[in-house]
Amino acid sequence: LTLVSFKITILGSSGAVPAFGRFPSSQLIDVQHNHFLVDCGEGSQMQLARFNGNLHGIDHIFISHLHGDHYLGLMGLIFTMHLHHREKDLHIYSPHGLQEIITTQLRYSRSVPAYTIVLHTLVPDRPEIIFENKGLTVETIPLRHKLPCTGFLFREKPKPRRIDKNNLPEGLPYYRLNELKAGFDLTDESGKIQYRNADLTLPPCHSRTYAYCSDTAYTESILEQVTGVDVLYHEATFVEADKTKAVDTLHSTAMEAARIARKAHAGKLLLGHFSARYRELDPLLKEAQTIFPETHLATEGQTFTIAE
Amino acid sequence: LTLVSFKITILGSSGAVPAFGRFPSSQLIDVQHNHFLVDCGEGSQMQLARFNGNLHGIDHIFISHLHGDHYLGLMGLIFTMHLHHREKDLHIYSPHGLQEIITTQLRYSRSVPAYTIVLHTLVPDRPEIIFENKGLTVETIPLRHKLPCTGFLFREKPKPRRIDKNNLPEGLPYYRLNELKAGFDLTDESGKIQYRNADLTLPPCHSRTYAYCSDTAYTESILEQVTGVDVLYHEATFVEADKTKAVDTLHSTAMEAARIARKAHAGKLLLGHFSARYRELDPLLKEAQTIFPETHLATEGQTFTIAE
Repeated sequence: LTLVSFKITILGSSGAVPAFGRFPSSQLIDVQHNHFLVDCGEGSQMQLARFNGNLHGIDHIFISHLHGDHYLGLMGLIFTMHLHHREKDLHIYSPHGLQEIITTQLRYSRSVPAYTIVLHTLVPDRPEIIFENKGLTVETIPLRHKLPCTGFLFREKPKPRRIDKNNLPEGLPYYRLNELKAGFDLTDESGKIQYRNADLTLPPCHSRTYAYCSDTAYTESILEQVTGVDVLYHEATFVEADKTKAVDTLHSTAMEAARIARKAHAGKLLLGHFSARYRELDPLLKEAQTIFPETHLATEGQTFTIAE
Repeated sequence: LTLVSFKITILGSSGAVPAFGRFPSSQLIDVQHNHFLVDCGEGSQMQLARFNGNLHGIDHIFISHLHGDHYLGLMGLIFTMHLHHREKDLHIYSPHGLQEIITTQLRYSRSVPAYTIVLHTLVPDRPEIIFENKGLTVETIPLRHKLPCTGFLFREKPKPRRIDKNNLPEGLPYYRLNELKAGFDLTDESGKIQYRNADLTLPPCHSRTYAYCSDTAYTESILEQVTGVDVLYHEATFVEADKTKAVDTLHSTAMEAARIARKAHAGKLLLGHFSARYRELDPLLKEAQTIFPETHLATEGQTFTIAE
């Protein structure tokens, strides 16, 4: 219908130990032509180049937690942006600790980036809106893991009603369209209704949502936030047969991810953060699909688009 | 002649900004079946897996300097070794600073590796033997760069004379071979010479050498150490036409690398650390070969073997 983007490109699908050509967690999220990076595992900048992502369009990077496989690609990205003469601010959102990690490394490399890094410290004990612009918000989703850890919920704001071009009266001044988009009937100077809004407009486009949930043990505490999302990414480090490993490490099985997706009535489920013990991922997919058929493997280079 | 290994596998050939599928600096050096990693840029662990390098065989990692493209892959490697239940000590050699960089990141990830990391701080103002075992030494090569920076010289120790099996007298006890290998004539109990060493042995195998020189401006100060090496790796970030960039950044051109190789009478020259401005590397190779014909591009996945 429209060309307003909402797409998720997978840069890395691996759990803690990269294997079989899979890279650690990282996703490029394009919402309304804002480019966000979610997690930034080792090699994210190479994966970004490989899949034609635009490094320079990224102004906001969200880091779920400070396990290496979710942030070790950040310093390389910071240095590359510097060497490419970036001038725009770079906003990075992360639980406490990243500032010391970054400044220590800048100090020893005697580098002073030509741009400003704005660090936003996340407190992952309750949901919080951490980014907002005209068209969308990003909020944290507290997760259950060994370190303070949050997912991220990308949510488009309510949209204007759409003008029904077929029913538009001739000669209606252009500036009155905003009243229609905002949902008002059109009245004359005396306040009398000339046109009913419902006759000239169509319902707004759907406000799209994407929830990124990694890393986490199975927890229904996230349902309140992720219920009804168009696309849910939920980590699926293990198969159900290895559930004791999931319990020990506070990760999830593919089946657990599917249970969350079903309970949340999600439109689609993406699985990722796969353990190095699985060369083939099909068993994880099949297992999840028994519970939630609309499941996909979120592997390197794939792009998932959410239509308006 | 023999099967004692000496080979260099290139994991990364890129300069500071990875581009065109090239990864930052890292090389796997196998000398006499000791496995060393030299530099460890972002993605080294993935490249190691890709080219069938054995992560667990690596006990010594040499870091030339603390620019990100030479060490950012280290934390990922450290975490992966931990997750693979490594128990052996891991020795890391680097200019001052790495300890704080590593411990800061271990602290925030709340990780305590199951093995010991032994950090050796290099003082890059003079050559120093930093590793020695029965068969080889590794010494630093002070380089000229923006940060304290050293190359590394891998040098086999002098080897025993080889027994000439065709001339060995019948019935000579096996234990006397060691006297021959050490260069002695064989004498009887009275001290009288029974066999001259030269009649029963051949000269020792060649003691092989490999010099890794990255990052550095052109400097003849290294010649004293690298003269006569079998293989010289010398960074070649730029072509000669971009020499002002090399001068500004304390890097070298391909032609300068070739000049060093020629002055050093090296057996072979490997070029690497290529700038992201060059998609095609052939111009760098051609330029160097005008001065030093035995030049090769040290690109990802290539292995260079030094015969005995």
